[in-house]
Amino acid sequence: MKTDIEIAQEAKALNITEIAKYEGIDEKYIEQYGKDKAKIDYNLLKDLADRPDGKLILVTAITPTPAGEGKTTTSVGLTDGLHKLGKKAACALREPSLGPVFGVKGGAAGGGYAQVVPMEEINLHFTGDFHAIGAANNLMAAIIDNHIFQGNALRIDSKRITWNRVVDMNDRQLRNIVNGLGKRTDGRVREDHYDITVASEIMAVFCLATDIKDLRDRLSRMIVAYNVDNEPITAGDLKAAGAMAALLKDALKPNMVQTLEHTPAFIHGGPFANIAHGCNSVLATKMALKLNDYAVTEAGFGADLGAEKFIDIKCRMTGLRPDCAVVVATVRALKHHGGVAKADLNKPNLEALEKGLPNLLRHVENMTTVFGLPTVVAINRFPFDTEEELKLIEDKCKELGVNVVLSEVWAKGGEGGLALAKEIVRLCESGEGNNFQFAYDVEESIESKLNAIVKNIYRGAGAVLTPEAKKQVQRLTELGFDKLPICMAKTQFSFSDNKNLTGAPESFKITIREIKVSAGAGFLVAKTGDIMTMPGLPKVPASENIDVDENGRITGLF
Amino acid sequence: MKTDIEIAQEAKALNITEIAKYEGIDEKYIEQYGKDKAKIDYNLLKDLADRPDGKLILVTAITPTPAGEGKTTTSVGLTDGLHKLGKKAACALREPSLGPVFGVKGGAAGGGYAQVVPMEEINLHFTGDFHAIGAANNLMAAIIDNHIFQGNALRIDSKRITWNRVVDMNDRQLRNIVNGLGKRTDGRVREDHYDITVASEIMAVFCLATDIKDLRDRLSRMIVAYNVDNEPITAGDLKAAGAMAALLKDALKPNMVQTLEHTPAFIHGGPFANIAHGCNSVLATKMALKLNDYAVTEAGFGADLGAEKFIDIKCRMTGLRPDCAVVVATVRALKHHGGVAKADLNKPNLEALEKGLPNLLRHVENMTTVFGLPTVVAINRFPFDTEEELKLIEDKCKELGVNVVLSEVWAKGGEGGLALAKEIVRLCESGEGNNFQFAYDVEESIESKLNAIVKNIYRGAGAVLTPEAKKQVQRLTELGFDKLPICMAKTQFSFSDNKNLTGAPESFKITIREIKVSAGAGFLVAKTGDIMTMPGLPKVPASENIDVDENGRITGLF
Repeated sequence: MKTDIEIAQEAKALNITEIAKYEGIDEKYIEQYGKDKAKIDYNLLKDLADRPDGKLILVTAITPTPAGEGKTTTSVGLTDGLHKLGKKAACALREPSLGPVFGVKGGAAGGGYAQVVPMEEINLHFTGDFHAIGAANNLMAAIIDNHIFQGNALRIDSKRITWNRVVDMNDRQLRNIVNGLGKRTDGRVREDHYDITVASEIMAVFCLATDIKDLRDRLSRMIVAYNVDNEPITAGDLKAAGAMAALLKDALKPNMVQTLEHTPAFIHGGPFANIAHGCNSVLATKMALKLNDYAVTEAGFGADLGAEKFIDIKCRMTGLRPDCAVVVATVRALKHHGGVAKADLNKPNLEALEKGLPNLLRHVENMTTVFGLPTVVAINRFPFDTEEELKLIEDKCKELGVNVVLSEVWAKGGEGGLALAKEIVRLCESGEGNNFQFAYDVEESIESKLNAIVKNIYRGAGAVLTPEAKKQVQRLTELGFDKLPICMAKTQFSFSDNKNLTGAPESFKITIREIKVSAGAGFLVAKTGDIMTMPGLPKVPASENIDVDENGRITGLF
Repeated sequence: MKTDIEIAQEAKALNITEIAKYEGIDEKYIEQYGKDKAKIDYNLLKDLADRPDGKLILVTAITPTPAGEGKTTTSVGLTDGLHKLGKKAACALREPSLGPVFGVKGGAAGGGYAQVVPMEEINLHFTGDFHAIGAANNLMAAIIDNHIFQGNALRIDSKRITWNRVVDMNDRQLRNIVNGLGKRTDGRVREDHYDITVASEIMAVFCLATDIKDLRDRLSRMIVAYNVDNEPITAGDLKAAGAMAALLKDALKPNMVQTLEHTPAFIHGGPFANIAHGCNSVLATKMALKLNDYAVTEAGFGADLGAEKFIDIKCRMTGLRPDCAVVVATVRALKHHGGVAKADLNKPNLEALEKGLPNLLRHVENMTTVFGLPTVVAINRFPFDTEEELKLIEDKCKELGVNVVLSEVWAKGGEGGLALAKEIVRLCESGEGNNFQFAYDVEESIESKLNAIVKNIYRGAGAVLTPEAKKQVQRLTELGFDKLPICMAKTQFSFSDNKNLTGAPESFKITIREIKVSAGAGFLVAKTGDIMTMPGLPKVPASENIDVDENGRITGLF
């Protein structure tokens, strides 16, 4: 069986100008990055302002297992399927982080015959967006420490600096550091922390910005520290917003590449899906929508996190409205939710499947009833799935008025996504059953919004705030940040805040340990446990297999 | 008077494909980065292997003042001058670092009407090379700490890790840190240090590599730590070379841009000129030489450091041979060397000039007699320079058989570089007086090579090694690293190791405090004092003036 990189390297990509021509993008908006990548100037959107949007399809998933259920692969294959049906379609996806490439997970540009290319470059530096975000983040950090060093006119409390440095690498050694050691001229000693670049608030800001001015304004609003009177200090106060925006001015242009079947793909931005909202940039989604009849996009983790944030944060801020949703599931993962051990997941087990199914059904019901979206379940098919198992899923979903289709895009590309594409076209064209709504009223109090998410989406008994979190809610309310949407930072492995509670747990409470504001992104982050914002490398890092031959061809990247 | 960025932004650059056409580069080797930047595949050099090289012109300078004497500006203007003379010419220059852009110095892409464009982008991320180098460096660091964390099979001594992390930012806060703090799963506590990216050994390796295989081999040889028995541990031992080479495979392709006058410019790599050799990549120099009749390149700092390393390290390793040298000077700087205070530098002062002239004459003599190169002195002319002052310089240089020409490239571009260009053509075409040689025999002992540099180039009394440095020489000799060339890390502000000894000091000794090997780069670094490898930001960082308008146009970058 061929590996992803072998399939990708055998593909004959079209020159990216051909894809741009297909999309009808004027040459003046295209900035080529090599032969098969391009940045598209965001000013194109001004020109297209009056053009009607295409249909927006949100791809989300059940509560994931560590292996992932194939959202990106399904998104790519579905887009190819729509393309094969004769529809003008593109996908809008997240850019991969370098961290996982060298760590455990490997690349993130789809899989099998449903990939975007050039796979290696997308997985490595691509067009440099993440490096630009890292540079802007670390310029901000250097400016904060330099301000303190040069006299600290703003009276920044070095114990209340909320801004971390970042690197796009899995590097546990940097989670907790003390810096500013050495001589008097070497800074001021303080505790500091590194996050992986995708966890920077700048990444969230970047993905929510609607143009360069909005980007600059959001950067300016970011709170980077509090002073000795506990008043917020922003990037604007430190005169850092302009230089950061200058560092990001090219990165902000969405990247266009192609699938293996030459369907356009916009791959741009990739914020964490826990402490941030986990969706590609607004600009990429808008570009895909303006230029196509169908735009397929994805949201990180399961629907409780990704879809909820996509709707309550990204759609709420920008006016984007999905026309329908796809919930991706695998029989394997549903059996996992039914309590089957990893080693036994490939064996037929109807009983365990039935036990795990409520996880899928709860996500589906959230999409249809809470968010009011026409929905389809896509089963990412594995060879050992039995007809009985598939039938059971189909019957249960039917009871909710939702069809189940089999997706074989990994093995067959767009051909394997035709059934899903047809169901999407049916859902979108009928327009029936679209009663789109948010999960909560953003004007409500912070606690009320937290409870709405916990009760309506997670189906738990309610949110419990620690005394510390309660104090933070009070302070954020005083500062006028209480009318922002909530970004839940919760484990992706359970509806609850306990990663071992698989399936569809009930009666649990969600403990909110910390609430902070991401004032530039424009949301409140509610942390429900230890959220890892800097991964580590495993015993044998994936980097050990990666190499490059004398012709510059990369091998061993999965 | 217009600022550099205003001049650059008013320029109408040609599409980079036009420049490639002028250079005769086959389309298959061109990777466009936007409309005005391109990477050129290094495989082009294989195709051109049989083509004769053009003439190689090395631009170097007197001992600099903090303002710099205009080497890059002169290099750009000279190339434009050659172009104007009807010669096919290109320059090969270093890429700027982000650090100075946001700190004190500002941009580094020439100045006035002798600039390379797009100036803002070259000064910001350009094509992402430095970010790629930073990522490779920090992957190496993460792998070292992960190796220790995962059991430390190689018995790395955490007190003997020689590999620093890097960031392309002026950030003094990171000079000395303790990392690995926190819980057991958060790494192992140790002292660590950050350098600015240009100080990474990878930068030196990158700039000396002759192809991707040589790059990988050099990366593999880099010593990153010593084990508890004081034996070297290499990147190869840690299986990191392949992944680092993969991260660098696109960065290694030289970048091509153009001057304001549409002359080709290869801008690629930029190692520190103290702990590394301070020259652009070998691949860029070779490309400029193969494609043109004249290739102009520069070396960092004054000729005692930059030219010496260009010749004794870069030329020695690669077979490159300069056809002539330009020594750049200003009347102001020579008066500075004559003891004039900064405030009085613009006043006529023949006496001070005469006192400062020996600095220029010593550099010139080094170029002509030690290195055996035909040489010209280029006076970067300022409006307040008097005829008497210029005449004095001319007369003194004549005594050494060297002509002086006035360069007015800052104000007039290539037109202002015509006189210099004509003298270069004369020197190259006559071929007379080229008795190229190195400053020392690389097969001699470390101490003997150190003394050769100090006596023959600096004209000091000799090198004195601290007891610590003597021990290191012994250990490096045991390890078989004694036959490598020497990279002197010395202040750029004096021939001596005391930055306050301006002019042409005599009888001084150079104290060697530390000797280490850069085994991947292939040289020994001799440190003569505190060498700053991580700058800090000033009280008012240049970043405060940098901004971007609603059309994405950058302002305030100088």
